[in-house]
Amino acid sequence: MTIEPRILKGFRDFLPSGEIARRDLIEKIEASFRMYGFVPIDTPALEYTEILLGKGGGETEKQIYRFTDNGGRDVALRFDLTVPFARFLAEHRAELAFPFKRYHIAKVWRGENTQRGRYREFTQCDFDTIGSDSAAADFEILLIMRNTLHAIANGAVIIRLNHRGIFNSFLSRLELSERTVDILRTVDKLAKIGRDETLKILSEFAGDKKAEELLAFIEISGNFDETLAVMKDAAGPCPGTERLTQIHQYMADAGIADSFVLDPSITRGLDYYTGVVFESFLAGLPTIGSVCSGGRYDNLVGLYTSDKRAAPLTGVGASIGIDRLIAALETLGRLETKSSYAQTAIAWVNDAASGWCQALGEKLRKAGIPCEVFLDEEKLTRQFQSAEKKGIRWLIIPDSQNPQDGALTLRDLAKRENREGLTVDNAAGIIGNSE
Amino acid sequence: MTIEPRILKGFRDFLPSGEIARRDLIEKIEASFRMYGFVPIDTPALEYTEILLGKGGGETEKQIYRFTDNGGRDVALRFDLTVPFARFLAEHRAELAFPFKRYHIAKVWRGENTQRGRYREFTQCDFDTIGSDSAAADFEILLIMRNTLHAIANGAVIIRLNHRGIFNSFLSRLELSERTVDILRTVDKLAKIGRDETLKILSEFAGDKKAEELLAFIEISGNFDETLAVMKDAAGPCPGTERLTQIHQYMADAGIADSFVLDPSITRGLDYYTGVVFESFLAGLPTIGSVCSGGRYDNLVGLYTSDKRAAPLTGVGASIGIDRLIAALETLGRLETKSSYAQTAIAWVNDAASGWCQALGEKLRKAGIPCEVFLDEEKLTRQFQSAEKKGIRWLIIPDSQNPQDGALTLRDLAKRENREGLTVDNAAGIIGNSE
Repeated sequence: MTIEPRILKGFRDFLPSGEIARRDLIEKIEASFRMYGFVPIDTPALEYTEILLGKGGGETEKQIYRFTDNGGRDVALRFDLTVPFARFLAEHRAELAFPFKRYHIAKVWRGENTQRGRYREFTQCDFDTIGSDSAAADFEILLIMRNTLHAIANGAVIIRLNHRGIFNSFLSRLELSERTVDILRTVDKLAKIGRDETLKILSEFAGDKKAEELLAFIEISGNFDETLAVMKDAAGPCPGTERLTQIHQYMADAGIADSFVLDPSITRGLDYYTGVVFESFLAGLPTIGSVCSGGRYDNLVGLYTSDKRAAPLTGVGASIGIDRLIAALETLGRLETKSSYAQTAIAWVNDAASGWCQALGEKLRKAGIPCEVFLDEEKLTRQFQSAEKKGIRWLIIPDSQNPQDGALTLRDLAKRENREGLTVDNAAGIIGNSE
Repeated sequence: MTIEPRILKGFRDFLPSGEIARRDLIEKIEASFRMYGFVPIDTPALEYTEILLGKGGGETEKQIYRFTDNGGRDVALRFDLTVPFARFLAEHRAELAFPFKRYHIAKVWRGENTQRGRYREFTQCDFDTIGSDSAAADFEILLIMRNTLHAIANGAVIIRLNHRGIFNSFLSRLELSERTVDILRTVDKLAKIGRDETLKILSEFAGDKKAEELLAFIEISGNFDETLAVMKDAAGPCPGTERLTQIHQYMADAGIADSFVLDPSITRGLDYYTGVVFESFLAGLPTIGSVCSGGRYDNLVGLYTSDKRAAPLTGVGASIGIDRLIAALETLGRLETKSSYAQTAIAWVNDAASGWCQALGEKLRKAGIPCEVFLDEEKLTRQFQSAEKKGIRWLIIPDSQNPQDGALTLRDLAKRENREGLTVDNAAGIIGNSE
């Protein structure tokens, strides 16, 4: 009896070349976070359903992987990293030092419709500063976004930001505060549904005149100062305009203001944001949408905190869409793919030499050169092909009659050239000095 | 309404210091695997139950997290990385280059009894070479085990190995082949249940005389050559003794024979091993048990391969018990704990300086020095404490009246010393040169 090998719809195997590309990307992102003093945490994949669903939410409830475990508990797989983080903060508050700067890169599961090109298992990457209400914290998240995306995409990044408070202040002036959620959701779709459709929907909530005013507000453009001045005129002075002025000053002080655009149309649909909100785009690929977005929120842990005297935990953070980013880099031709980390291989020459070849390999590894040793009898031309297939440029070929250091041939598979009579140190030098 | 923040029994949150220690360990292990040309793969956390349970297995079936998804599929969380790997190999055989050297480090889930100090969510770390039946492949896995554990434990490692074929040959001589599984399971428990109890159980299967012979066989000791000679006498010549002779020669050629002990009592309970089997122990901590074990197996993918003409895929591999290893390193005092990757922090001096401080931080980061910028107003002594709590040794304090490069104070929190009037380059030099 055999079982058909197959995986669930919406789930993926990662073969070496794909997994190496994912790892490279995640390692670069992590290295960047660590440079800023951000630290990793982890939480369980499985939690009580009550924790994950909280007050309950329509779409989420339908997509969550939920079941009863062998102990009769109502449990579910996490569908994002935000809700477990809120639970984590409420539970470990006394053990943590604030402001708490953390990142979390892990898989989440949603039983989504796979026809829209979505996966049911995917990686989220969140980073947040919790417990600081400062403009400095907002700015730091923006700085990390900019520099991390720069390092990865190796090209220009534009971050578009706005402040929820200013938009709310404007809505209040128009006496539309009660329709805030509907309006935010509509405005958030502007790029997708177009100006006319947006105007039509807004008119239903706000009447024709106010709908025009709303559109005019979110279409304000110009440089940061000009845009902010017009927004201030329209919405009135409010803490949000002061905050943006301060953040813009920090950008100028750090010499990175060019990467940012003040854009009143950025609102982020989710209603838990209360301060700055932002999205970021790779300059070569504006159409792929935001690859890193986020904002400031007031009180993440409220749902899990029974102590009414406990101060709310404000925070600011962003999330990098790893899968979308990989797709974008692939389109830009900036996703390096390889199917091995090895820089060189050592050819099989005879079975008796295998221990000695590994000793040779150790010398290379100690010199920082990853080295695969070929294990099985095969023609040399086939061994060339094996190395090339893996993207390994160099092959060290010991003398098959008398394998010894000083009698090594180094094959450059890229240039199809041999150099003979080398020591392992010679070979290490040549390989190490190649780019 | 609030919800009590709590996690499921047997599941864990990882706070920064614990998570950093885990990451450090895993990163060292991965770096080692990559040095040998081993490549990463990944598979879904959730699979068809049919795939995971295969022919069905008593203990596993009771422990698996199994449920029906919203699409009516019978699914389960993976309980190890071996079964998904077998499915992966059967499914992607045509896309892979053999011998295929892969590693996989990922979480698995088992609803085990938590009273025995076991977790229901834990990390497995497997590495295997598939598609080579050579002694060179066996030796390479042993070499990687030795060198990886050396790098992690920073001390002596002893790997005890044996060959299933020799033991089987011996059982055949004693006409006990039919009781192989029972005998293997009993012998595997020798260290746990003691000599007398082992003898008693073996006598039930084999009678008193043969039970004594069995015990005498597994108690053979001496150096590698001596032990092998006595085993050969007892079991008769067989491919297993040739294989061990070859592997021992490789060890000698690579100058690492001292790390290995031939131990006929190592059998590994699981009955899918068919060749070499091995366990490894940290010299300072023999009682904690094996931290890395494995062996050679004949045909991992058989269950999923309907094509009868397809050649079986033999393999050899090992698994590192990450959780056990962390516990062992902690006991040995060799687990480095820290709660930040930052080497230095920059003190908050006033809100207006925050952008400038981040620009200062960028200079340090470009020099390879991870740097956290403090965001909020706080007394300097409290900022000292914050840095110390995170294990950050250095604090750069700009002049609060006139923050400028060249007027920086560098606080060494370890020595409680200040150096004044520095440039950021001076500070980077001092921090970079401290160990």
